[in-house]
Parts: sequence; C-alpha cells; structure tokens
Amino acid sequence: ARPRVGYYYTGKTGGQLFQERLLKLKVKDFQSIPVVIPENASVYDGICTMFLEDVGTLFVVNNNGKLIGIVSRKDLLRASMGKQDLESLPVSIIMTRMPNITVCSPEDSMLEVANKLISKQIDGLPVVKSDGDGGYDVIGRMTKTNITKAFAYIGVEEQS
Amino acid sequence: ARPRVGYYYTGKTGGQLFQERLLKLKVKDFQSIPVVIPENASVYDGICTMFLEDVGTLFVVNNNGKLIGIVSRKDLLRASMGKQDLESLPVSIIMTRMPNITVCSPEDSMLEVANKLISKQIDGLPVVKSDGDGGYDVIGRMTKTNITKAFAYIGVEEQS
Repeated sequence: ARPRVGYYYTGKTGGQLFQERLLKLKVKDFQSIPVVIPENASVYDGICTMFLEDVGTLFVVNNNGKLIGIVSRKDLLRASMGKQDLESLPVSIIMTRMPNITVCSPEDSMLEVANKLISKQIDGLPVVKSDGDGGYDVIGRMTKTNITKAFAYIGVEEQS
Repeated sequence: ARPRVGYYYTGKTGGQLFQERLLKLKVKDFQSIPVVIPENASVYDGICTMFLEDVGTLFVVNNNGKLIGIVSRKDLLRASMGKQDLESLPVSIIMTRMPNITVCSPEDSMLEVANKLISKQIDGLPVVKSDGDGGYDVIGRMTKTNITKAFAYIGVEEQS
C-alpha cells in the first residue's frame, strides 16, 4: 500500500511550494494598528507620541484624516539635533510627503512589503485604503517588526 | 514511468520541509558589518556615527575592543530630549550594558534571531565570538532589516 505521508502529488518543486506558501501571508494578517498625528502637530508632539505609543513610524493626516506624510524615528532624531525649538517646529516640515510615500494594501503579500522595505530602505509603511477620490485612509502599519513576526510565524506553523 | 518532478520521497510533511529549509538560513549568511564606538564617546558622537554609518544600532566597546554596551536610535532620541549637553554626556550612561545584552553567534539560525528580536522587543543584536575569557568580540550586526532580507530571499530562491 502507498504510505500516507501527508502530501499530494502536484508536479511542483519544493521551491515552488515554498513560494506559494509565502505568498499566502497577507498584510491584513500581520499589520499593526496605525499611529497618526495631525499635520499641525509639533516635532515635540511627534517625539512624545512615538515614545508613548512605542512605535518607530508615525503617519501624518490632514483635517479630513487623509494621509499626507510619514515621519520616522530617524527624521525626529535629525530634527532634535537642529537648533530649532521642537515645540514650535511643525512635524509637516520634516515629514516625507505624499506622493513620495510608499504604501501597501491589506491584500498585498508580506513578500511584496518586504521587497518594498528593502528596496526603498525604509522602516515602515502605511496600510491604506483609497477613498476613490485620490486620497488615502490609513488603516494599518507595516514595519520590519511585522516582517520579523511573519518570519518567526512560518518557522512554527504546521500546515496540512 | 514515474514522472520526474524534482522532489524526493522523505516521509516528511510540507510544514516540516519548510521549517528545515528555514533553519538552514544562518546568521553568518545574512549579518551586516558591526558599527562600534568607544566607551568614552559622547552621545553626540553616537548620533553622528549613527547618521554617518546609517545604522539603527551601535555597539560600545572598551579599550580592548570587547563588547560592553549597545545603543539604539530610540536611546539616542530619548537622550537628545533631555536637558544635558550631548557633547559632554558619555554614551556609556545611556547604553544597555552587559550582561543585559542579547547576543547571537554566526552559526545561529535566522529563526532563532527573529524569535529573540520579537520576544525581547529589540531592533538589533550583536553577532559575537566569545574570547574564552568571559568577553565578547563583536563580529557582526543582526537587525530586523537582515530578517526582512532573509524573508525576501526565501521568496525568490529556487532550491533543488
């Protein structure tokens, strides 16, 4: 009798199966809650928010809650070394602005996000939903921490 | 005739093969070059080094080149918000000290490192070699960026 070993004949190589399994890991399954600040927040506010929320990336939104910028820990450290008064310096001066922001959507694969983070040399990006009017609502946060969790996850999962 | 499909009968499930493949990814294959500063460096020196070298984690070494501390971008941002003069504040005051430093070695798997980064909530750790005398030489740097690169790597590799 044929031994029951828990795999099916598919004609695919191990490498292909590996890739297919990876591609099933979606942003929506690993994303974190986004931390946003208003565009009139100061750099000082931004630094406080970053420590209070313990995140490395903040998203800046306008009065309508639409994404207009992104600020990293590196941006804030650079600003803190300047001569300006951090409480009067608006975060909108130092942020990276739309359309220069790399985004992702909930249905994207973690693999796409990993490639974006590496190729753009960024720490994190917003998970967004287009409002159909050229704007983006921020619905999540994806960082190298989420990728690291996905990496650890595939090391323990037992799929059938 | 039996079709040649590029896999062997091993009696293992897909999940097990997946894990085995992951465990073959070693620190030594993905590690970055470490950036170290002397223990008498100032916080200001640390921040400059971090920007010049474009890293998020610095390792602090003593006169003999042995690891005594680690400083993150977050530590430096916190220090920069204080009232102290950054040029006279020694980095050794704000660093995380041995033996509270999580380390790894070149032969560790990337999976072990991913789990350490997640469970300890740290951004990076030194790759070390024990000098046999209780001290550690820093020979590499492992961060969530390296894990992200490993994740992207397994998505494209074609193993036989």
